Amino acid sequence: MVDILHKVGIKSSSPHDVYKALTAREGLSAWWTTNTQGESKADGVLLFRFGDRGGFDMKVLELQPDKRVLWQVVDGPREWIGTRISFDLRQEGDWTIVFFKHQGWKEPVEFMYHCSTKWGVFLLSLKSLLETGKGAPYPDDLKIDSWE
Amino acid sequence: MVDILHKVGIKSSSPHDVYKALTAREGLSAWWTTNTQGESKADGVLLFRFGDRGGFDMKVLELQPDKRVLWQVVDGPREWIGTRISFDLRQEGDWTIVFFKHQGWKEPVEFMYHCSTKWGVFLLSLKSLLETGKGAPYPDDLKIDSWE
Repeated sequence: MVDILHKVGIKSSSPHDVYKALTAREGLSAWWTTNTQGESKADGVLLFRFGDRGGFDMKVLELQPDKRVLWQVVDGPREWIGTRISFDLRQEGDWTIVFFKHQGWKEPVEFMYHCSTKWGVFLLSLKSLLETGKGAPYPDDLKIDSWE
Repeated sequence: MVDILHKVGIKSSSPHDVYKALTAREGLSAWWTTNTQGESKADGVLLFRFGDRGGFDMKVLELQPDKRVLWQVVDGPREWIGTRISFDLRQEGDWTIVFFKHQGWKEPVEFMYHCSTKWGVFLLSLKSLLETGKGAPYPDDLKIDSWE
């Protein structure tokens, strides 16, 4: 089992603001993909779409307000199905720290290398959204390799 | 054992150019840290410094021209010592794809979350250096959290 881990600190923000950006559809669509549908409530399913690339359906497994969000991938690329994605929030002074984990990958396939870097890019988009009011969600995301 | 994995594609570049940026001191200092010293040859030691934050000493374990670079951390933060960092290059048409691995972490400590995101940031700096002529090495790197 191999995991993707990331950490970003978001300045002048509260865990409450970050939690909103991770749970409200208008928040998610402002840093990950503009095409975000579905219901962000326990047992709801969120649909994230990326044009021709398809996308991911995430079942919301856990919502701890201002603290933690946990999703499980129920549809999408074969390697993602069954994996879990979590965001844990911690306040440190004027900052909110986001600990990100995408766990349950069976093998460190090449696609995992791509997804690891790309999650970093999207978490920086989340940071930017909260710090400046402007994220870079798909389709305006930073492209990182030849197949995007 | 947990690894940090990343992948970036560098447009209009050759594995030879990327290899140079990963081995020549002037290359490394243009995307990772401006304070790069030492000798990039087999069994040589490279010294990367980041101001007050200290830095890393890397022994060069393997150099396969235009294909692969492997370092082992011989001094630096406790969690890094003994870990290995590799860059594997592959040509795909007009692109050079970089597969990055930082392996040998004993535990997924919080510092590993930070380093994972930060490696992504520096690999995007490498990409930018080769695509535009300008990287963002320390101290001009993108700061990602509160302790930088």
